[in-house]
Amino acid sequence: MVHQSTIELKTNHHGQMHDLTERVAAVVREASVVTGTVNISNVGSTGSIGCIEFEPGLMEDLPNILDKLIPPSRSYGHEQAWHDGNGHSHLQSTWLGQSLTLPITAGRPNLGTWQQVFHLECDVKPRTRTIVVTVMGE
Amino acid sequence: MVHQSTIELKTNHHGQMHDLTERVAAVVREASVVTGTVNISNVGSTGSIGCIEFEPGLMEDLPNILDKLIPPSRSYGHEQAWHDGNGHSHLQSTWLGQSLTLPITAGRPNLGTWQQVFHLECDVKPRTRTIVVTVMGE
Amino acid sequence: MVHQSTIELKTNHHGQMHDLTERVAAVVREASVVTGTVNISNVGSTGSIGCIEFEPGLMEDLPNILDKLIPPSRSYGHEQAWHDGNGHSHLQSTWLGQSLTLPITAGRPNLGTWQQVFHLECDVKPRTRTIVVTVMGE
Repeated sequence: MVHQSTIELKTNHHGQMHDLTERVAAVVREASVVTGTVNISNVGSTGSIGCIEFEPGLMEDLPNILDKLIPPSRSYGHEQAWHDGNGHSHLQSTWLGQSLTLPITAGRPNLGTWQQVFHLECDVKPRTRTIVVTVMGE
Repeated sequence: MVHQSTIELKTNHHGQMHDLTERVAAVVREASVVTGTVNISNVGSTGSIGCIEFEPGLMEDLPNILDKLIPPSRSYGHEQAWHDGNGHSHLQSTWLGQSLTLPITAGRPNLGTWQQVFHLECDVKPRTRTIVVTVMGE
Repeated sequence: MVHQSTIELKTNHHGQMHDLTERVAAVVREASVVTGTVNISNVGSTGSIGCIEFEPGLMEDLPNILDKLIPPSRSYGHEQAWHDGNGHSHLQSTWLGQSLTLPITAGRPNLGTWQQVFHLECDVKPRTRTIVVTVMGE
């Protein structure tokens, strides 16, 4: 069985994180899949999907470490294409990942207590994001 | 067809790696799936799943490069939540990934000769880990 | 429904990127799957699969940032195993990821306009690569 739905998200700034866990769980419930997998994918190449303990400290730490290791700069080759100062956004998003697949057990995404699904805005301006959630199983 | 099983793992220290390849292959065999996919996911946000050539050199190199780029430190914002010195564990695990999906071909995970499935303990103390293995296909 | 096929690729050098988007879309069309997922996996542990805006700037930026943060060196433990100078290739490929799963919507991989599927050669010599594409859905 396959069920697909989308989550719409408005983001405000570079480094902003959203907790998607309950919205993903709601799509799994709609699908009535008890055992299987759920794929969560950001449409576009400057946003990321992943898992983290969603608490205020890590909501600063994750964007900070990304900006430290892959810093904002006008010297990326990408700057030649668009001149919009978001070369680091692309590299951060690609390296962290734009897509995630999780197991479904007993009708819910199988996550630890302190493990949530997040969206991270890597771009440098507010965006409207579409996240595709695909449930497969039985 | 969907088949789901778990692998239990006891880990001893930060940076310890386990080769899960044969245990994942055994779950695929149990499922009698010839063609499809297998998802391998760590429950919890301070352990990682990935693929690597599982040999003693890389078993040191991978935790070393993670500790170099995302170093242990008491200065992470996460420290404010729990004061347990594992902010870097969360960031390493999130960036490397907690979940992996591989193709199944001819009844086995389709991997290269020097490509194995690993679990990496990113936390700073021994943990008992549950890894969920979900096989789908026909 | 499950459909699996392979893409063969000849690579020439470390850091070379190929755009796989159209070849992946062709496998999805062959499968006649309208809604579902497609998994794209590199066989072998020194090549990566991911998503990026495939344009000349980022084709330099991505290998550059990987070489900056995980630099070529003879000092990796992996060098003891094979003495072939590709320790960084393994670490780059493992950290960036060797496998990707994307949603299928309306018979096509659901990607943004500036979001393409790439293969990155992380090894230090030309390789012949096999990429396994697995389509599931209905």
